[in-house]
Amino acid sequence: MKIPYKIYLSEDEMPKQWFNLRAQMKELPEPFVNPATGEYCTKEELLPVFCEELVDQELNVTDTYIDIPQEIQNYYRMYRPSPLVRAYNLEKELDTPAEIYFKYEGTNTSGSHKLNSAVAQAYYAKKQGLTCLTTETGAGQWGTALSMACAYFGLDLSVYMVKVSAEQKPHRRAVMETYGAKVIASPSNTTQAGRKILAETPDTNGSLGCAISEAIEVAVTSENCKYVLGSVLNHVGIHQSVIGMETKLACDKYGIKPDIIIGCAGGGSNLLGLIAPFMADKINGKNEIEFTAVEPASCPSLTRGKYALDFGDTGKTTPLIRMYTLGSGFMPSPNHAGGLRYHGMSPIISKLYHDGYINAKSYAQKEVFDAAVAFTRVEGILPAPESSHAIKAAMDEALACKASGQKKTIVFGLTGTGYFDMTAYMNYNAGNMTDHIPTDEELQVGFDSLPKID
Amino acid sequence: MKIPYKIYLSEDEMPKQWFNLRAQMKELPEPFVNPATGEYCTKEELLPVFCEELVDQELNVTDTYIDIPQEIQNYYRMYRPSPLVRAYNLEKELDTPAEIYFKYEGTNTSGSHKLNSAVAQAYYAKKQGLTCLTTETGAGQWGTALSMACAYFGLDLSVYMVKVSAEQKPHRRAVMETYGAKVIASPSNTTQAGRKILAETPDTNGSLGCAISEAIEVAVTSENCKYVLGSVLNHVGIHQSVIGMETKLACDKYGIKPDIIIGCAGGGSNLLGLIAPFMADKINGKNEIEFTAVEPASCPSLTRGKYALDFGDTGKTTPLIRMYTLGSGFMPSPNHAGGLRYHGMSPIISKLYHDGYINAKSYAQKEVFDAAVAFTRVEGILPAPESSHAIKAAMDEALACKASGQKKTIVFGLTGTGYFDMTAYMNYNAGNMTDHIPTDEELQVGFDSLPKID
Repeated sequence: MKIPYKIYLSEDEMPKQWFNLRAQMKELPEPFVNPATGEYCTKEELLPVFCEELVDQELNVTDTYIDIPQEIQNYYRMYRPSPLVRAYNLEKELDTPAEIYFKYEGTNTSGSHKLNSAVAQAYYAKKQGLTCLTTETGAGQWGTALSMACAYFGLDLSVYMVKVSAEQKPHRRAVMETYGAKVIASPSNTTQAGRKILAETPDTNGSLGCAISEAIEVAVTSENCKYVLGSVLNHVGIHQSVIGMETKLACDKYGIKPDIIIGCAGGGSNLLGLIAPFMADKINGKNEIEFTAVEPASCPSLTRGKYALDFGDTGKTTPLIRMYTLGSGFMPSPNHAGGLRYHGMSPIISKLYHDGYINAKSYAQKEVFDAAVAFTRVEGILPAPESSHAIKAAMDEALACKASGQKKTIVFGLTGTGYFDMTAYMNYNAGNMTDHIPTDEELQVGFDSLPKID
Repeated sequence: MKIPYKIYLSEDEMPKQWFNLRAQMKELPEPFVNPATGEYCTKEELLPVFCEELVDQELNVTDTYIDIPQEIQNYYRMYRPSPLVRAYNLEKELDTPAEIYFKYEGTNTSGSHKLNSAVAQAYYAKKQGLTCLTTETGAGQWGTALSMACAYFGLDLSVYMVKVSAEQKPHRRAVMETYGAKVIASPSNTTQAGRKILAETPDTNGSLGCAISEAIEVAVTSENCKYVLGSVLNHVGIHQSVIGMETKLACDKYGIKPDIIIGCAGGGSNLLGLIAPFMADKINGKNEIEFTAVEPASCPSLTRGKYALDFGDTGKTTPLIRMYTLGSGFMPSPNHAGGLRYHGMSPIISKLYHDGYINAKSYAQKEVFDAAVAFTRVEGILPAPESSHAIKAAMDEALACKASGQKKTIVFGLTGTGYFDMTAYMNYNAGNMTDHIPTDEELQVGFDSLPKID
């Protein structure tokens, strides 16, 4: 069958259920640990922070399929299905026998896949009768996505935005404000957590871990308000599985059999969502797909981190999560553009990596932007820096195919657009792109912040 | 039949021909006039400036259908078809019996419909053996689109960008540079036309007319180089007819019968492209659709301009075009955000308006942004200021339906996204949006610049 440039499912074909990969795993990730007691967290312990239905999803390790509520399906129809694109021009440019496909999540105004979970989380919050949400955002996609969802469902939203991003991306901030969100550069004076960090390190650029501490503090001390997170957590991965469900339906419809699936990985939600149904088949012996997580060399949680119990935030207020981590005290260099700067990694992705189901590799920033520009000139999509990590890995795989003569089928996740990352592109265009790959000594500072419980 | 949220044509259904509306018009627009001789321009007179195949299209008043070359069809497949979207949420928000649809051209990286003609023009330039193109850009969409097309076909490109836009939109400029284009703020010292205007008005904000003069001067004085224009001209309208062809195919497929079709109008190419096949049917008595052009009150070429022979550029170097115009000496106020700031209007749109086939209305900037924000909160797409003029008109029509109880079918063109217009949104969010609607005396300054030949 001739493969179109872009495969769109019809609305009837769109997934009506999310995929909960844990229900198919041979060994489960360790549950969250209460740092005060050393015991596994109960549902009751999570309820003060999160919406009830999200806690249920977070703890659900038995149901493979979870129904997508109709109202969420309706919102999805405004911007989904996203296309599975055959990168004919990139194949030609690379002169490779490989077939390259990408699942493109950048066609919505949030500019990324983040909207898939934002809509779900705002919906459940509304359903529970909440009036207010808080969150953090790094590069800004998550904050934008949640702003859109909260405007739609009529919820107040406070976004703690990592300070360096807020300064580098005033326009990203303006998008959130256009949707009615309140955006606060983090660390801020509005929380105890923020004031403490500012007192210790007044010149800090901020970090996701710190912004999380602030957002949680505001949620638990406000009326009718909960905290929501855009990555890492299990329920976020469930919502993002709509990416993988669509991809698998499109592949099955056109007889596309991926040999390699590649995704960039910061907190891991995009990668987890993209691979979920394919990984279940691999676990069950139905395919031999190679899965690759790609991360920045400047924030290498999988490739150089430790598999350990760690806090999710800098303020050490969250439960402990067993994950690949650089330590909640790790601060990525400010010359790292875009997202993928979280110190940890989805516990599911971490477990799969630990058990050998996933490979990981890292790239420096300059080579990632080289790939981004080569890609955009032939495929016409200006990618986000985050997504460009996956582009670089896919191009390397395609070039390996050219060298070996193998005709592999490569699928990667193109998570979003770079329209709000032009400062980074300007640096690149001017030849001023720098990177900082942490030394072992610098990593040790982060590892020293790990809790001693382990 | 249930109408999906988004109607996508399959690749097989996509148009293989453009629609040349002039071949169906009862009376033709007046041909271009050579200001030196007062005679109609010949093909030979246009060849020094434009590519040959584009000149042929410009002068073609007999062929209704023009084949889209396969290479252009291939590029179109990277970002087309664009969806025809049923605005279910906007209908609900307005509580209107009307059905509202929009044809959404903003899913490509240029952020607008401009890519439809940019790809075509770059293709023909390449085919003719050229190595270099020049153009102007106002809000930046056209320059971005042409940068993408030139990167793809391997052509050098110089973009003269209206000074106030270049200053307000450094990120838009950076996108063009990422695709390898050279961007020059206009008026500049690189041309005689620019130096003359700078000498007369050193503090000028620039204008499209002036940027056109500069771009043409560079094209005619450079080797292997031609000038290309992103709107106004007939061949641009032909390329943009892919919008209308897709819209009509989608409407026919789902039994959608528009009562009103609305488009914003600056140079007129988007509106012309959207309405072309529908207008032909109206001319031939096959429908009674109401067509509405929407323009900014700050640059009201249809609603307050004169139908006269005028130059296309401030430097008065182009042939004379009979069109609705404010005079090539008209300068829109710099507090007008976005595009739609050209002094004239497509001669085809002008003729249709003159002959009563099209209505026109204008809106002030503040009410346009009110509509944009209301739209984006329910439909999730952050629109360009230009496109928001059409949103405002569509919302007014839908509210009129609510008042009258009529169930009309409204189709409007959503030409692009506002991701590079966040400075304007920031002004709006801060309550600082101003507008300047020209006084009759100010318009007279422009009219005084009209050639006396008429």
